[in-house]
Amino acid sequence: MNYAIVRYVIGYVLYFEAAFMVPPCITAIIYREFCGWSFVITGLLCVLLGFILSHKKPKNKIFYTKEGFVTVALSWIILSIMGSLPFLFSGSITNPIDALFETVSGFTTTGASIIKDVEALPRCILFWRSFTHWIGGMGVLVFLLSILHITGSGSHMNLMKAESPGPSVSKLTPTVRSTAKTLYLIYLGMTIIEIIFLLIGGMPLFDTLTITFGSAGTGGFGIKNDSMASYSVYLQVVVTISMILFGVNFNAYYLILHKKFKEAFAIEEIRWYFGIILASTMVIAVMVTDMYSGFGEAFQQAAFQVGSIITTTGYATTDFNLWPEIPRTILLLLMLVGACAGSTGGGIKVSRLVILVKTIGKELQTLIHPRSVKKLKMDGHPIDHEVIRSTNVFLIAYVLIFAFSVLLIAIDDFDLITNFSAVAATFNNIGPGLEMVGPTQNFSVYSNFSTLVLTFDMLAGRLEIFPILLLFVRGTWRRY
Amino acid sequence: MNYAIVRYVIGYVLYFEAAFMVPPCITAIIYREFCGWSFVITGLLCVLLGFILSHKKPKNKIFYTKEGFVTVALSWIILSIMGSLPFLFSGSITNPIDALFETVSGFTTTGASIIKDVEALPRCILFWRSFTHWIGGMGVLVFLLSILHITGSGSHMNLMKAESPGPSVSKLTPTVRSTAKTLYLIYLGMTIIEIIFLLIGGMPLFDTLTITFGSAGTGGFGIKNDSMASYSVYLQVVVTISMILFGVNFNAYYLILHKKFKEAFAIEEIRWYFGIILASTMVIAVMVTDMYSGFGEAFQQAAFQVGSIITTTGYATTDFNLWPEIPRTILLLLMLVGACAGSTGGGIKVSRLVILVKTIGKELQTLIHPRSVKKLKMDGHPIDHEVIRSTNVFLIAYVLIFAFSVLLIAIDDFDLITNFSAVAATFNNIGPGLEMVGPTQNFSVYSNFSTLVLTFDMLAGRLEIFPILLLFVRGTWRRY
Repeated sequence: MNYAIVRYVIGYVLYFEAAFMVPPCITAIIYREFCGWSFVITGLLCVLLGFILSHKKPKNKIFYTKEGFVTVALSWIILSIMGSLPFLFSGSITNPIDALFETVSGFTTTGASIIKDVEALPRCILFWRSFTHWIGGMGVLVFLLSILHITGSGSHMNLMKAESPGPSVSKLTPTVRSTAKTLYLIYLGMTIIEIIFLLIGGMPLFDTLTITFGSAGTGGFGIKNDSMASYSVYLQVVVTISMILFGVNFNAYYLILHKKFKEAFAIEEIRWYFGIILASTMVIAVMVTDMYSGFGEAFQQAAFQVGSIITTTGYATTDFNLWPEIPRTILLLLMLVGACAGSTGGGIKVSRLVILVKTIGKELQTLIHPRSVKKLKMDGHPIDHEVIRSTNVFLIAYVLIFAFSVLLIAIDDFDLITNFSAVAATFNNIGPGLEMVGPTQNFSVYSNFSTLVLTFDMLAGRLEIFPILLLFVRGTWRRY
Repeated sequence: MNYAIVRYVIGYVLYFEAAFMVPPCITAIIYREFCGWSFVITGLLCVLLGFILSHKKPKNKIFYTKEGFVTVALSWIILSIMGSLPFLFSGSITNPIDALFETVSGFTTTGASIIKDVEALPRCILFWRSFTHWIGGMGVLVFLLSILHITGSGSHMNLMKAESPGPSVSKLTPTVRSTAKTLYLIYLGMTIIEIIFLLIGGMPLFDTLTITFGSAGTGGFGIKNDSMASYSVYLQVVVTISMILFGVNFNAYYLILHKKFKEAFAIEEIRWYFGIILASTMVIAVMVTDMYSGFGEAFQQAAFQVGSIITTTGYATTDFNLWPEIPRTILLLLMLVGACAGSTGGGIKVSRLVILVKTIGKELQTLIHPRSVKKLKMDGHPIDHEVIRSTNVFLIAYVLIFAFSVLLIAIDDFDLITNFSAVAATFNNIGPGLEMVGPTQNFSVYSNFSTLVLTFDMLAGRLEIFPILLLFVRGTWRRY
């Protein structure tokens, strides 16, 4: 382990976090909220700690996958610890473990909350909560790398590999740095478009910004106790479309931007993604029509909930806990599916699922024709053996951690659906689960121990398990 | 597909099924039950159908993996259809789909039942129900092959591969045929020992036979409405130990029989198996001590339930539905774990789990030392790449079928725990689940459609998925 360089990069991350404190400070000034000082103090602490960590340049520039994974994991943990301070300083949350849960939930774009009455929170705190979604959506280190050049060769790729969601980082442009830049510009552009559409619908600016941060990062923190239920149908539809579009593989936008429309629409993952959304929405709409004014409203409500769950955003416009069992089961399965790779969404990812399904198909073909040497294909190209292997390993780690987490939080003696869906909702970075952690409930019911387990799950889910697991292996910490 | 040989082997299987009708017939004569004629008629039908299928010897002796898988899958389906006739003829079950469910549940050693009042059934029907467990435990085709030599070369291996539980068939003896014979002798010997121990405890002969069939096959059909709760502690302990021993990899007994004690106790899977049983029993016993007279009784009850669930038997001596959430969650996870490969038990199998856990360990090591070429080891030997691959594929198929089944049976609008545990209980060939299908309940609540889905799951679980899946692929049915 090259400690010097890890320390150095984390120091820079803290400088950035200090800068992130500025927008909530401005919010506090506008609304004349005294608790704005929490952000000033946190910002100063970040600068101080950042200086301590990064004032000495590292001599050793070695930066392997291991360093990439550890840097990303530690950065996210330290970002979250520092990010939880404003909640504590302002008195919005008194229990440090709850504050950490809330912040990790923000940065990992989960959107699960332990706050019972969000409407009672100061505006600047609400803004910070939603802003963490936007920061976490695209990834902090990728952002850092897109504008700085601080480490040795290979480091960009290794950092991006650890922080980007999905089975593999596709090399869209010759250098990782310019890819990161382009992705951020697309992210920024789409965010602005959503803000404009929401403002047109008459949503107040503060609501517009926070709701947009939440849907762009596919996070889901609301600023109202009923999440999105009290907004107009137009605004709900805008958010539905936005969520679904932010769950699309950003490679598609990159291709569209370069006028490669044919290639963009040929991406298999995206076809599956829209296929799943459409099929799920139709089935649910038919089954809940009786509960609404007609098929139209049922479809709109179903589309919102499906879009919110598959992209792992977690906004809600209706209490889907009251829906019949098939819609509920579909939503629970969509939680596991997740959005596309290379989007801001969480979950297993559609492309992994496509690979897994194709693996089964290939296995059956091999049983029928033992001598055939057919390769799995995606978008017309054979899938790299390494991608298949890592997808399999991901599934194994996913299932084992999932099962183990459900077992650990059973200590609070809640029912199995609550526990199962709490793990599903945090591990896949969705937000609300079912029953006691359903869309109209929250996670404050859990004990400190379970809250920590679920916090771990959120981080493991966002960073796709292995960067976080690596921290627990002794070999990781051996000096070179 | 070599249709002729598949037809021919299935014909022989039907001859055997006719022979299996003799013991229940004798039972009917002893207890002077008129419904014994159901077995006579079923037996005659089996002989007739068997003759039609097998009177013409196949010229083409080709017998690849595909033929092996299809033969096994079709044999089990036809065995089950014919085996359900006595239930219908005797009027014990009136709905043919329920009768099929009950029979598949028997042959696959699941032990899930749709019968509400088993004590009202005639003795000969009860005997048949339990006897199907014993037949299905070791596998029908392996039995057939151990005493006959009807097909071409390679067929034995291919049939055994399809019917034996676990990731790979280890070649204990030079020829598959003599292995099959030895395994059957061990099976028979252990069955007789259990019968003797139960008789010593004063259990009536009829109870002894049926309970032994259920525990030897790790099935779990009881002959009393309270399963095993009303038997003495001694009898419960004998059954606990028997179940656990029948869940051990039979290779160990083979090695012990050949005085290779050191090798037998070095099998990693068995150490994990006993480790999991001991750890689970201890944790549960501590947590439910308050509900019993003391730690002693709690430990005995916990051991019975853990042994029953991990071996996928499904007998119950207490309603574990009333236990707190951690014991319930442990039992649910043990349902998925299952017994050892090469035993009569179901589930994912301990050895697969060991391989999966080791895969994660290796992945982390590779991240730390990218250039290391470490092989996964089991029992001191490197694991064959093909075994690792097929284990991964198994997990994928397992997870996908599991999720899809839960979705399909949600149509009956029962709660998620009921549905989830119903699939877990049938797919892993356990028997009872939780809530509405808990140990004191049964599966009669489900609609015909869901009953068929669960029947499919039982067969897929017992035959380890791929033989059954292969039936649904068009390429399977192409003539040579």
